[in-house]
Amino acid sequence: MSSLLIRNCRVLQIPLDEPRATVLTGQDVIVRGNRIEAVQPTGQADISHFHDVIEADGMLVMPGLINTHAHVPMVIFRGLAEDVSIEKWFNDYMWPLESNLQPDDVYWGMQLGLAEMIHGGVTSVADHYFYMDRAAQAVEKAGTRALLGWAIFGSGGMDAINQTANFVRTYQGAAGGRIRTWMAPHAPYTCDDDFLRACVQKAEELGVGIHIHVSETMGQTEASLEKRGLTPIQVLDQTGVLDVPTLLAHVVGAMPGDMAILARKPTGIAHAPKTYLKLAMGTAPVRAFMGHGIPVGLATDGAVSNNTLDIWESLRLMALTQKQEAGSPEMMTIPQNLFIATRMSARVIGQAHELGSVEPGYLADLILVDLSGVHHQPLHSVTASLVFNTAASDVNTVICDGRIIMQERKLLTLHEGDIVAQVNAGMERLAQRVPSRRIQVYNP
Amino acid sequence: MSSLLIRNCRVLQIPLDEPRATVLTGQDVIVRGNRIEAVQPTGQADISHFHDVIEADGMLVMPGLINTHAHVPMVIFRGLAEDVSIEKWFNDYMWPLESNLQPDDVYWGMQLGLAEMIHGGVTSVADHYFYMDRAAQAVEKAGTRALLGWAIFGSGGMDAINQTANFVRTYQGAAGGRIRTWMAPHAPYTCDDDFLRACVQKAEELGVGIHIHVSETMGQTEASLEKRGLTPIQVLDQTGVLDVPTLLAHVVGAMPGDMAILARKPTGIAHAPKTYLKLAMGTAPVRAFMGHGIPVGLATDGAVSNNTLDIWESLRLMALTQKQEAGSPEMMTIPQNLFIATRMSARVIGQAHELGSVEPGYLADLILVDLSGVHHQPLHSVTASLVFNTAASDVNTVICDGRIIMQERKLLTLHEGDIVAQVNAGMERLAQRVPSRRIQVYNP
Repeated sequence: MSSLLIRNCRVLQIPLDEPRATVLTGQDVIVRGNRIEAVQPTGQADISHFHDVIEADGMLVMPGLINTHAHVPMVIFRGLAEDVSIEKWFNDYMWPLESNLQPDDVYWGMQLGLAEMIHGGVTSVADHYFYMDRAAQAVEKAGTRALLGWAIFGSGGMDAINQTANFVRTYQGAAGGRIRTWMAPHAPYTCDDDFLRACVQKAEELGVGIHIHVSETMGQTEASLEKRGLTPIQVLDQTGVLDVPTLLAHVVGAMPGDMAILARKPTGIAHAPKTYLKLAMGTAPVRAFMGHGIPVGLATDGAVSNNTLDIWESLRLMALTQKQEAGSPEMMTIPQNLFIATRMSARVIGQAHELGSVEPGYLADLILVDLSGVHHQPLHSVTASLVFNTAASDVNTVICDGRIIMQERKLLTLHEGDIVAQVNAGMERLAQRVPSRRIQVYNP
Repeated sequence: MSSLLIRNCRVLQIPLDEPRATVLTGQDVIVRGNRIEAVQPTGQADISHFHDVIEADGMLVMPGLINTHAHVPMVIFRGLAEDVSIEKWFNDYMWPLESNLQPDDVYWGMQLGLAEMIHGGVTSVADHYFYMDRAAQAVEKAGTRALLGWAIFGSGGMDAINQTANFVRTYQGAAGGRIRTWMAPHAPYTCDDDFLRACVQKAEELGVGIHIHVSETMGQTEASLEKRGLTPIQVLDQTGVLDVPTLLAHVVGAMPGDMAILARKPTGIAHAPKTYLKLAMGTAPVRAFMGHGIPVGLATDGAVSNNTLDIWESLRLMALTQKQEAGSPEMMTIPQNLFIATRMSARVIGQAHELGSVEPGYLADLILVDLSGVHHQPLHSVTASLVFNTAASDVNTVICDGRIIMQERKLLTLHEGDIVAQVNAGMERLAQRVPSRRIQVYNP
């Protein structure tokens, strides 16, 4: 069994159920196989007993970051839909662009996005997209962890449900357990009630959860109330979607009554604040969710709205926008933000007891953050620096499932040059846009 | 006279008076002495005629970034006042902490902050702080450009005004013209009318402008209206402050009537959106300022509120928060954001015709931005990447006043190790906080 010693590091520690953050100094972290074996004061371990030793020299070890909602392969369309309304974004840009999509685009796009995320310390992603068999192959190669869902629209009918269910079965536990699979209907406004009910039935049969967009804006919530007298959350409740484990993307447009429903259900919210700002979608009620005991995790959404897959940016923007929304800089404190970035993000993807913490028994998804850059100095507060100063480029080393996948910023599993060349070869085709050729129509 | 050839680059071009952005490819930029001599298609220049040649290989050349309002040496207190209200931030943290301040702290803190800014492509800063003779020495050493003001409070009386005027005289045009100096009264709420009038008189005598905080929050504006029936902008108008060139920090709490006043005056606004979010100060009316023809420049404010001195972050947050505030993703377009980051920021510090553009005759303050990182790929839109993807760490090379001061991310004028060691040596003393020992009281 492989073994790894990370010597003389700082360690970020956050309890399972409490937004409190402490930083231990002068620690060793011991990894055996794909699990953390020990966290102990430095100097006690015998270096000769380990296959690999990383001299951390004061760097901070913390859990690998978790991106709880993305469409990673969309990086191939990055920068193609700027300064446009949500309606145009969907109908004139994204959905026409996605009619260009080929399985190979997903394979290389997924690799490109995973390369970006590894560079920024992201070891897990909950991804929601098409041709997910190809995405799974990219995850296998990258050495990261993923919760994958093959996105389907109601227009696809039972064929689509059976196809995505097949994917769930085939890839569940793939890549040595690093890949998990869930059902992924797109949203209540693109899937009718019968379709949602059929998805629930399939999820129950397969023993998996559902990853879905819901109440992305208050406008969607109002449209749903007008059309049928129900909020989108109430629709999910009535169709049984909320009775299986669910990962709900966005929920910016939550009504007060939605909170009580969500608080009773095995659900979690993916929060992607850069997208909400950029598309002027409003501010998600993160503090209210947390106050109701509804877990919230950090996310980037896709790169056509978010432009990057940078979870540090999501963390910082969550902290900043929630302070602004609260009208008080005393709210949404540093420990609360770090709690969401680690423990809560793990909970949202259903791995609260094996991810999101540097502690014995947990899966060894770890990152080393270099806080020696001048933008952190002097380092009066490590935790403040993590929320407000740390850049993706401060991540020095990334370990996933006990294996080093980036060391001193060099990727060990993916070849950037090849990936970029493969994606660039298709750029002209990818950027073609025929508004009448679209995979779906946005009309919530 | 020194000469520099930057070979085969992309060049960002933005007209003087219009928010329009284009990117030329395959260009050479020729620098002679401290000025740009030519921008021309690559391959025409004879390499042997230049002292220095930089092979840009597709990197983007754009104007050095301008930080239009900061308190750079405050980096020494970074992370010491987190999750607190504005009142506590001033009265229980900043102003007590600043009672620890010694001239050497400013010298080393300024170097530390300049090192951070050079790493992020900032070549000019308008700084507002104490012991500015020491700050000027740091700027001279760093090789950057600065508009410096020695901050004074009304409580200092004529002695303070004379001292700061002395600084203005002594350091005007220092460092071979890279340093300019202005008067720097703190704010209307810490300086009475007579004091402001005396500052104006002194500024007129010296032929300089005034850099001042005003209407930092709507709360300050309301307090001023209640106390004396005038907005803080009206106070500046009545005391003559707006009749000299002014650089107004923040103006988050602007009233509609303030716009008409500012539109008639030789003034500009420094915009620091990260600080506004973090301290829940509200959203500055950037689009309204620009609509009234009032120039706006990007800023970071000090690192105790902003945590970093990263102008890319200010650019991105301005774009995002203004789209949110407008309630429309179609507003505050990419060209408008880049116009503010370059042309308008130069105008705000009074250098519209020699900074903020890559064109013949302009001062050679240039940066090379490396857009080859996976977080920019594929590069469908260079200008979108500049606003939404670029990190400080993408800046590869920095040239100020014709001199290379960072090359391939290595600082050539400052010694990071020495600076950090000097600052860290004083950390314990710097972090001491006796609330009763403060340099000022916040009670707007």
